[in-house]
Amino acid sequence: MKLASFHHQGGTHFGRVEADEVVVLSERDDALAGVRELLALGEGGLAWARSERAGDRRILLKNVELQAPVPNPQKYLALGGNYPSHLAEAVKAGVVRGTGQVWFNKQVSCINGPFADVLKPWISDQFDYEGELGVVIGTRCRHVRAEDAESVIAGYVVCNDMSVRDWQLRSPTHTLGKSFDTHGPFGPWLVTRDEVPDPHSLRLRTWVNGELRQDANTSEMTHRIGAMIAELSSAFTLEPGDVLSTGSPAGVGGLMEPPSYLQPGDLVRIEIDRIGAIENRVAAEPRI
Amino acid sequence: MKLASFHHQGGTHFGRVEADEVVVLSERDDALAGVRELLALGEGGLAWARSERAGDRRILLKNVELQAPVPNPQKYLALGGNYPSHLAEAVKAGVVRGTGQVWFNKQVSCINGPFADVLKPWISDQFDYEGELGVVIGTRCRHVRAEDAESVIAGYVVCNDMSVRDWQLRSPTHTLGKSFDTHGPFGPWLVTRDEVPDPHSLRLRTWVNGELRQDANTSEMTHRIGAMIAELSSAFTLEPGDVLSTGSPAGVGGLMEPPSYLQPGDLVRIEIDRIGAIENRVAAEPRI
Repeated sequence: MKLASFHHQGGTHFGRVEADEVVVLSERDDALAGVRELLALGEGGLAWARSERAGDRRILLKNVELQAPVPNPQKYLALGGNYPSHLAEAVKAGVVRGTGQVWFNKQVSCINGPFADVLKPWISDQFDYEGELGVVIGTRCRHVRAEDAESVIAGYVVCNDMSVRDWQLRSPTHTLGKSFDTHGPFGPWLVTRDEVPDPHSLRLRTWVNGELRQDANTSEMTHRIGAMIAELSSAFTLEPGDVLSTGSPAGVGGLMEPPSYLQPGDLVRIEIDRIGAIENRVAAEPRI
Repeated sequence: MKLASFHHQGGTHFGRVEADEVVVLSERDDALAGVRELLALGEGGLAWARSERAGDRRILLKNVELQAPVPNPQKYLALGGNYPSHLAEAVKAGVVRGTGQVWFNKQVSCINGPFADVLKPWISDQFDYEGELGVVIGTRCRHVRAEDAESVIAGYVVCNDMSVRDWQLRSPTHTLGKSFDTHGPFGPWLVTRDEVPDPHSLRLRTWVNGELRQDANTSEMTHRIGAMIAELSSAFTLEPGDVLSTGSPAGVGGLMEPPSYLQPGDLVRIEIDRIGAIENRVAAEPRI
């Protein structure tokens, strides 16, 4: 099942995507929290969403404006250096390695729609993309073992972990450069885990203006999703809707020779097998 | 004005603290977001909260259970190495310096009450405290200049940036070791900025079981609060209720010689002039 948040005729709703239509599951105007609430209900909620009786109104997908499928997670965490190909180029550029999984936060205020404009900051000329597989948590959990982790996953999304490289490298924590407003687009919808039998066998590609920049497979990940959930939940409770972005492969613009950063007008497309594609146009941040 | 969130007779409310009483400003049981909502109203909301006509029910402070005054901020950020005395000891212990302000996230899931128990994790024996002045944002803002920053501050709190040192040092981002569940107590209430004319002239002290461990003045901070808000808001929008913890001075347990980590039964008290004191007892996390 594909669960989408979307704007339509001035309201914000969520629904189930079927072919070229979306079946409306909530008409509520405050449905921004819809998917998250549904996830909090667990399998019962998902079974309801999947059922024929849930939703009798259909809208053509082309007539809605898709939003991030979980617009307001409590946490949005991302993993650095999880593809050997990218880690090598990142360390060369000055990123500090940890001894294990290197997690940082994207502030939830940076979350953006899968087809929304993303803003090139006026205070930097080093705006970059990172195509990544995102995992959305479906069950409140703590101290999950790696081998049990699949059960707490709601599903998967395509993430662009957009980065402002000079601001990222000001601090080994990456906090500022990973979280500029609009720099957290993901979607295009949440694909429930039953449709992705093996999340470590998905081709991931990123194009900028039609030029292929990243072409990898999630099988290359150093740390597997089960190990990620085990590590994070050792420290803190994961909540339904929390988003974990699992790292990016080689091919980011800032590590090309010479570097090629994003400019206003550029179009970044990221596609992952079985999940879908997101596409964001770069616009100039209005200077204030 | 002192704004407090509290439990009383099974409900959660918020109110204004006056001497040994709290004047109830909201009886709503879902008032956990009360202070944040009030801040979003800006000066008008604060003026209402301050007025004689707001609230006619008074409860003795000793009969309520104080909670974190902003229980559900969108963001909880903390600054590393902002006191030269602590930075020196931290770098010696392996913490990686940045070239400017080093911000990291405490996950909002770690927020805890000012007098609640804090849990020593069963997976670590390196549980530590850090007494810090916290700033609570009152106005949605972006691109704030340092000299204008005071206007976006709602007020101040006492924070304990509790840290699990071995987990902190696994990654230069500090993400896991700073965010174990229960490790973000703050309070005891939000003191509005009009009562703190100079936040850079406050004595800050931390005791463990009555032994003075940290004794410093916020005048020692390397980066001032205005510069912090300017830096963060260069990258992203700050929201009413966001909490910024401004760094800790020397004297944390893990950097004593020999190190002295917190054990179940220990009591950590942090007091800051004009704000108040928080006091948290260490309990053992139940092993699962």
